[in-house]
Amino acid sequence: METSRTIPLTRRHPGGSEETHDQVAVEEPLEIRLDGHPVAVVMRTPGHDEELATGFLVTEGIISKVSQLRKIEPRPEENRVLLFLQDDVTVDLYKLTRHFFTGSSCGLCGKATLDAIFTESPPIHPRVEISDAAFLAAPEKLRSAQSTFDTTGGLHAAGLFSETGELLVVREDIGRHNATDKVIGHALHHGLDLEKSFLLVSGRVSFEIMQKALAARIPAVAGISAPSSLAIDFARASGQTLVGFLRPPTFNRYA
Amino acid sequence: METSRTIPLTRRHPGGSEETHDQVAVEEPLEIRLDGHPVAVVMRTPGHDEELATGFLVTEGIISKVSQLRKIEPRPEENRVLLFLQDDVTVDLYKLTRHFFTGSSCGLCGKATLDAIFTESPPIHPRVEISDAAFLAAPEKLRSAQSTFDTTGGLHAAGLFSETGELLVVREDIGRHNATDKVIGHALHHGLDLEKSFLLVSGRVSFEIMQKALAARIPAVAGISAPSSLAIDFARASGQTLVGFLRPPTFNRYA
Repeated sequence: METSRTIPLTRRHPGGSEETHDQVAVEEPLEIRLDGHPVAVVMRTPGHDEELATGFLVTEGIISKVSQLRKIEPRPEENRVLLFLQDDVTVDLYKLTRHFFTGSSCGLCGKATLDAIFTESPPIHPRVEISDAAFLAAPEKLRSAQSTFDTTGGLHAAGLFSETGELLVVREDIGRHNATDKVIGHALHHGLDLEKSFLLVSGRVSFEIMQKALAARIPAVAGISAPSSLAIDFARASGQTLVGFLRPPTFNRYA
Repeated sequence: METSRTIPLTRRHPGGSEETHDQVAVEEPLEIRLDGHPVAVVMRTPGHDEELATGFLVTEGIISKVSQLRKIEPRPEENRVLLFLQDDVTVDLYKLTRHFFTGSSCGLCGKATLDAIFTESPPIHPRVEISDAAFLAAPEKLRSAQSTFDTTGGLHAAGLFSETGELLVVREDIGRHNATDKVIGHALHHGLDLEKSFLLVSGRVSFEIMQKALAARIPAVAGISAPSSLAIDFARASGQTLVGFLRPPTFNRYA
């Protein structure tokens, strides 16, 4: 279960070139199976596959809480994770197709879409206000906790923080969405209070990050880099707080 | 057709906070329709939708060359692009599902997958050798040509270069894969010789970037940041050149 691997390479520099070695981030497919049916393949960095699969199922709206799962069997050597539903739970796998296939009209355009998303994941009326100080202290905590980034430069990180700014969990992955799913999966498995937390991602904040956070009932999202226009529109409609360019001592509050 | 938008925000700094404005990268869905059927929705930065759709269809293996298309109708105001096949062309849309649904065994794991990919897109025996000088000169040319990055900080860029290092086209997008698809779509529409070119992306090099480049017969890919392990494995098997951490005066050659 390696997240980085040593590989040989040729390093070119002004004086010539040399054969050397470096660490690179591992990227491998993970097949997620639910009750024996393959439901998704995600390209991910190995590790915490159980969290990734749980977080994915919740943030994609397939299940609503971890107690709907009866059993989880990670099989890292096969790049698979097997999940099993409780007997009385049924799910709609059709939701997973939203990314690729649409019906007679575009499923993601405009107000009809936001309405559809909010039917599944209602807007939030935050019960907590995250302080500026909590946001400002978060990037350094995230960096300190990152285990692989410094050696490969190839991983995205996501961290979940308590309302007072305490770092609850950090996960890294070649995919930014995966890092977010892993953090959320971890929180669900450990019963953390997502409604009183905020999420920090190491890069940009996209629409999908906001949507995943909302599905997990996270009221505030911060990014080290820029948010997209749709992330901002989404946050303003969902009631979520959105902070960008979180680079102490400054940051931008977009919603 | 705006790629960035001015939005109001609250900027927090040590002296307090102020209401201000900033440019953010626009992210909107694009529905790609082929002969009237919706085949995909991608989240993209508006602009060059025609190139994006063509590049997407080729790099995902749906069509093999632009001449298989009879007509392209971008409808930016609807966030749609309509493409129509020549009468004698048939396609297999099932290929698009590979990202989400798999058959009885994981479609992306190990050697069987590489074999399957290489059946569609055979390995390359490059007819050109890109010089170190051409690679080293590329990042500055990409940066000079980028139109939006400096104002929003939220876009990925991809550039296509001739074998001698001449910049042929640069495109930016909120999605790195989209920027690559746009560049490839542009090259296909303009009859550029992809077999004698190389691709430079502003960030990391993933497996999917290598795969898209191979589908377009691009023999060399460079990234400003790190490649993933699977990108390296793929390049070594496909015959493509893979350069990472292209930060003059140095870079790494992984394959």
